[in-house]
Amino acid sequence: MKVTVTISLKPGVLDPQGRAIENSLLSLGYQDVAGVSTGKQIILDINEDDEARAIQKCAKMCETLLVNTVIEDYEITVEREDA
Amino acid sequence: MKVTVTISLKPGVLDPQGRAIENSLLSLGYQDVAGVSTGKQIILDINEDDEARAIQKCAKMCETLLVNTVIEDYEITVEREDA
Repeated sequence: MKVTVTISLKPGVLDPQGRAIENSLLSLGYQDVAGVSTGKQIILDINEDDEARAIQKCAKMCETLLVNTVIEDYEITVEREDA
Repeated sequence: MKVTVTISLKPGVLDPQGRAIENSLLSLGYQDVAGVSTGKQIILDINEDDEARAIQKCAKMCETLLVNTVIEDYEITVEREDA
Protein backbone atom coordinates (compact mmCIF):
# COMPACT_ATOMS: atom_id res chain seq x y z
CA MET A 1 0.00 0.00 0.00
CA LYS A 2 1.35 3.39 -0.98
CA VAL A 3 1.16 5.96 1.80
CA THR A 4 2.16 9.56 1.22
CA VAL A 5 3.41 11.76 4.04
CA THR A 6 3.30 15.47 3.29
CA ILE A 7 5.46 17.49 5.66
CA SER A 8 5.20 21.24 5.99
CA LEU A 9 6.63 23.80 8.38
CA LYS A 10 4.37 24.91 11.18
CA PRO A 11 2.90 28.40 10.86
CA GLY A 12 5.32 30.95 12.22
CA VAL A 13 8.44 28.91 11.51
CA LEU A 14 10.82 30.73 9.17
CA ASP A 15 11.03 29.22 5.69
CA PRO A 16 14.28 30.52 4.16
CA GLN A 17 13.99 28.17 1.19
CA GLY A 18 10.57 29.59 0.40
CA ARG A 19 11.88 33.14 0.73
CA ALA A 20 14.78 32.36 -1.60
CA ILE A 21 12.42 30.93 -4.22
CA GLU A 22 10.12 33.94 -3.88
CA ASN A 23 12.99 36.39 -4.33
CA SER A 24 14.28 34.48 -7.35
CA LEU A 25 10.84 34.42 -8.98
CA LEU A 26 10.36 38.14 -8.37
CA SER A 27 13.77 38.95 -9.83
CA LEU A 28 12.91 36.81 -12.87
CA GLY A 29 9.92 39.09 -13.45
CA TYR A 30 7.08 37.03 -11.94
CA GLN A 31 5.55 39.97 -10.09
CA ASP A 32 2.30 38.12 -9.29
CA VAL A 33 3.96 35.93 -6.68
CA ALA A 34 2.70 36.96 -3.26
CA GLY A 35 4.24 34.22 -1.19
CA VAL A 36 6.04 30.90 -1.37
CA SER A 37 6.26 28.10 1.14
CA THR A 38 7.95 24.75 0.80
CA GLY A 39 7.35 21.25 2.02
CA LYS A 40 8.51 17.67 1.66
CA GLN A 41 6.84 14.53 0.50
CA ILE A 42 7.78 11.00 1.50
CA ILE A 43 6.04 8.16 -0.34
CA LEU A 44 6.20 4.90 1.57
CA ASP A 45 5.44 1.49 0.13
CA ILE A 46 4.17 -0.51 3.10
CA ASN A 47 3.43 -4.25 3.12
CA GLU A 48 0.09 -3.89 4.84
CA ASP A 49 -3.36 -4.47 3.37
CA ASP A 50 -5.38 -2.80 6.09
CA GLU A 51 -5.63 0.92 5.49
CA ALA A 52 -6.15 1.94 9.11
CA ARG A 53 -3.18 -0.10 10.27
CA ALA A 54 -0.99 1.25 7.46
CA ILE A 55 -1.83 4.80 8.55
CA GLN A 56 -1.16 3.93 12.17
CA LYS A 57 2.26 2.45 11.35
CA CYS A 58 3.08 5.41 9.17
CA ALA A 59 2.14 7.85 11.94
CA LYS A 60 4.51 6.04 14.27
CA MET A 61 7.32 6.30 11.70
CA CYS A 62 6.59 10.02 11.38
CA GLU A 63 6.78 10.58 15.12
CA THR A 64 9.97 8.56 15.57
CA LEU A 65 11.98 9.45 12.47
CA LEU A 66 10.43 11.25 9.54
CA VAL A 67 9.06 14.43 11.05
CA ASN A 68 10.56 16.99 13.39
CA THR A 69 7.33 17.59 15.29
CA VAL A 70 8.73 20.65 17.02
CA ILE A 71 8.72 22.69 13.80
CA GLU A 72 6.88 20.52 11.27
CA ASP A 73 3.32 19.34 10.65
CA TYR A 74 2.49 16.21 8.68
CA GLU A 75 -0.43 14.77 6.82
CA ILE A 76 -0.86 11.14 5.82
CA THR A 77 -2.78 10.17 2.70
CA VAL A 78 -3.32 6.68 1.34
CA GLU A 79 -3.21 6.02 -2.37
CA ARG A 80 -5.92 3.62 -3.44
CA GLU A 81 -4.84 0.70 -5.56
CA ASP A 82 -8.10 -0.11 -7.27
CA ALA A 83 -6.51 -1.10 -10.57
CA MET B 1 -4.82 31.79 -5.52
CA LYS B 2 -2.81 29.03 -3.90
CA VAL B 3 -1.10 26.75 -6.39
CA THR B 4 0.81 23.67 -5.26
CA VAL B 5 3.66 22.24 -7.28
CA THR B 6 4.57 18.67 -6.40
CA ILE B 7 7.99 17.69 -7.68
CA SER B 8 9.17 14.10 -7.85
CA LEU B 9 12.15 12.37 -9.37
CA LYS B 10 11.58 10.72 -12.74
CA PRO B 11 11.39 6.92 -12.71
CA GLY B 12 14.87 5.46 -12.96
CA VAL B 13 16.62 8.40 -11.31
CA LEU B 14 18.46 7.36 -8.18
CA ASP B 15 16.87 8.60 -4.95
CA PRO B 16 19.60 8.40 -2.27
CA GLN B 17 17.47 10.32 0.25
CA GLY B 18 14.70 7.76 -0.14
CA ARG B 19 17.18 4.90 0.26
CA ALA B 20 18.60 6.47 3.40
CA ILE B 21 15.12 6.84 4.91
CA GLU B 22 14.28 3.25 3.97
CA ASN B 23 17.45 1.91 5.59
CA SER B 24 16.83 3.96 8.72
CA LEU B 25 13.23 2.72 9.00
CA LEU B 26 14.33 -0.89 8.51
CA SER B 27 17.04 -0.57 11.15
CA LEU B 28 14.46 0.93 13.52
CA GLY B 29 12.45 -2.27 13.13
CA TYR B 30 9.81 -1.23 10.61
CA GLN B 31 10.18 -4.38 8.52
CA ASP B 32 7.01 -3.72 6.49
CA VAL B 33 8.61 -0.92 4.51
CA ALA B 34 9.10 -2.09 0.93
CA GLY B 35 10.24 1.15 -0.62
CA VAL B 36 10.59 4.87 -0.02
CA SER B 37 10.71 7.73 -2.46
CA THR B 38 10.91 11.42 -1.78
CA GLY B 39 9.62 14.58 -3.37
CA LYS B 40 9.27 18.29 -2.85
CA GLN B 41 6.32 20.59 -2.59
CA ILE B 42 6.27 24.29 -3.40
CA ILE B 43 3.13 26.22 -2.50
CA LEU B 44 2.82 29.47 -4.44
CA ASP B 45 0.47 32.29 -3.60
CA ILE B 46 -0.26 33.92 -6.95
CA ASN B 47 -2.18 37.17 -7.48
CA GLU B 48 -4.35 35.81 -10.25
CA ASP B 49 -8.06 35.05 -10.17
CA ASP B 50 -8.29 32.97 -13.31
CA GLU B 51 -7.41 29.36 -12.58
CA ALA B 52 -6.22 28.46 -16.08
CA ARG B 53 -3.93 31.47 -16.22
CA ALA B 54 -2.55 30.77 -12.74
CA ILE B 55 -1.66 27.23 -13.81
CA GLN B 56 -0.09 28.52 -17.01
CA LYS B 57 2.06 31.03 -15.12
CA CYS B 58 3.02 28.40 -12.60
CA ALA B 59 4.03 25.97 -15.36
CA LYS B 60 6.30 28.65 -16.79
CA MET B 61 7.90 29.20 -13.37
CA CYS B 62 8.45 25.45 -13.08
CA GLU B 63 10.13 25.23 -16.46
CA THR B 64 12.37 28.25 -15.87
CA LEU B 65 13.31 27.92 -12.21
CA LEU B 66 11.54 25.51 -9.92
CA VAL B 67 12.00 22.14 -11.61
CA ASN B 68 15.01 20.42 -13.09
CA THR B 69 13.10 18.88 -15.99
CA VAL B 70 15.99 16.60 -16.88
CA ILE B 71 15.53 14.48 -13.77
CA GLU B 72 12.28 15.70 -12.22
CA ASP B 73 8.57 15.55 -12.99
CA TYR B 74 6.06 18.05 -11.66
CA GLU B 75 2.36 18.27 -11.07
CA ILE B 76 0.38 21.46 -10.51
CA THR B 77 -2.75 21.51 -8.37
CA VAL B 78 -4.91 24.49 -7.51
CA GLU B 79 -6.38 24.89 -4.07
CA ARG B 80 -9.94 26.15 -4.20
CA GLU B 81 -10.78 29.10 -2.02
CA ASP B 82 -14.49 28.63 -1.65
CA ALA B 83 -14.60 29.87 1.91
